[in-house]
Amino acid sequence: MPPAVVLLSGGLDSATCLAIARDQGFACHCLSFDYGQRHNAELAAAARLAKALGAAGQRVIPFGLAEFGGSALTDSAIAIPTAGLQPGIPVTYVPARNTIMLSLALAWAEVLGSRDIFIGVNAVDYSGYPDCRPEYIAAFEHMANLATKAAVEGRKLTIHAPLIDLAKADIIRLGSALGVDYSLTVSCYQADSQGRACRLCDACRLRAAGFAAAGMADPTAYRY
Amino acid sequence: MPPAVVLLSGGLDSATCLAIARDQGFACHCLSFDYGQRHNAELAAAARLAKALGAAGQRVIPFGLAEFGGSALTDSAIAIPTAGLQPGIPVTYVPARNTIMLSLALAWAEVLGSRDIFIGVNAVDYSGYPDCRPEYIAAFEHMANLATKAAVEGRKLTIHAPLIDLAKADIIRLGSALGVDYSLTVSCYQADSQGRACRLCDACRLRAAGFAAAGMADPTAYRY
Repeated sequence: MPPAVVLLSGGLDSATCLAIARDQGFACHCLSFDYGQRHNAELAAAARLAKALGAAGQRVIPFGLAEFGGSALTDSAIAIPTAGLQPGIPVTYVPARNTIMLSLALAWAEVLGSRDIFIGVNAVDYSGYPDCRPEYIAAFEHMANLATKAAVEGRKLTIHAPLIDLAKADIIRLGSALGVDYSLTVSCYQADSQGRACRLCDACRLRAAGFAAAGMADPTAYRY
Repeated sequence: MPPAVVLLSGGLDSATCLAIARDQGFACHCLSFDYGQRHNAELAAAARLAKALGAAGQRVIPFGLAEFGGSALTDSAIAIPTAGLQPGIPVTYVPARNTIMLSLALAWAEVLGSRDIFIGVNAVDYSGYPDCRPEYIAAFEHMANLATKAAVEGRKLTIHAPLIDLAKADIIRLGSALGVDYSLTVSCYQADSQGRACRLCDACRLRAAGFAAAGMADPTAYRY
């Protein structure tokens, strides 16, 4: 099985992305990040999912994104919005997050001899983050194929974003068909230490609407 | 003075790049990395240079690149070549290093409200690393301008690589004219704990040849 690097946050989308990569025949090397996010429930979920979905391995890389601040996800002085999705890019946007994560995935892929990176970004039912859009992913792939020794030597890299055009309900249906247990995932921006969700943040709202639209029971553990 | 993020390794090129950015009127926020490189003399040099060259600030961000291995600069099991420059990309290549560093610079630039990142890459007297070439820098800039909230809102980012077309001797002449004290810099891939250079690695050879070609005394402290 060819190796792939799969970005795994512990949320619904990245869990589905991992199941897709495995279904496509890749040996999945999962990469998670401790970037100073508000809670570690997400990282605990990532570890459970890597195991449950038969990953070849998982690494958790620390990087000091919280030092820069500028996001509600890394700075507890900025409140998580709970009034529902608003127009524009919300304060939960983390500057350059996907670029940093894909860059570290690129490094690991090159060392593994992998030509494939999977990322569970979605540009349909999402929070409007610019680094989730197809044109961004294409530009990263182009840059990556100029950046590495592997690319110079002819081993071209593909960034797979298999969820990018899917509605949340379609993601949930697809993942369920591939055996994802969504009760293991944590999407909430402000989950508690047991991973229980707030029900009010954008991530909770998008997720709950997805289960409803898919006509499936929502397995999320809520705080209230 | 507008803020710029300047990647500062502590070597000759990045010191010159910092001097250029300052000369162009930027308030320079220097970004250095502890990525598991073989020695910390480089980071000590970066701190000295930031101070000597009037930086507005400096941050050192850790990230776990050594965990991936695959480079003589991060894996002590791979020997640093000392026989002189050879054709091809050498084992001192660090997978995706400049991509990761520029990605973290992108995050800091966005938080600072900066539209300018400086990197001291050079594609003339260099070790053949793919992520030092002009086409790579252009591709990163294009990607970055799709990645961020700042770019979406019209604040375009420029990646400045003012050394990219210069011979090492020209870099040294330019930096000297701008007041860089090259005795503060450490270029050697295997400097000792006091920053004294080996004289034999590719970085030492390129640097020494640069001072010779510039007709200037080499201020490097060598071990022997």
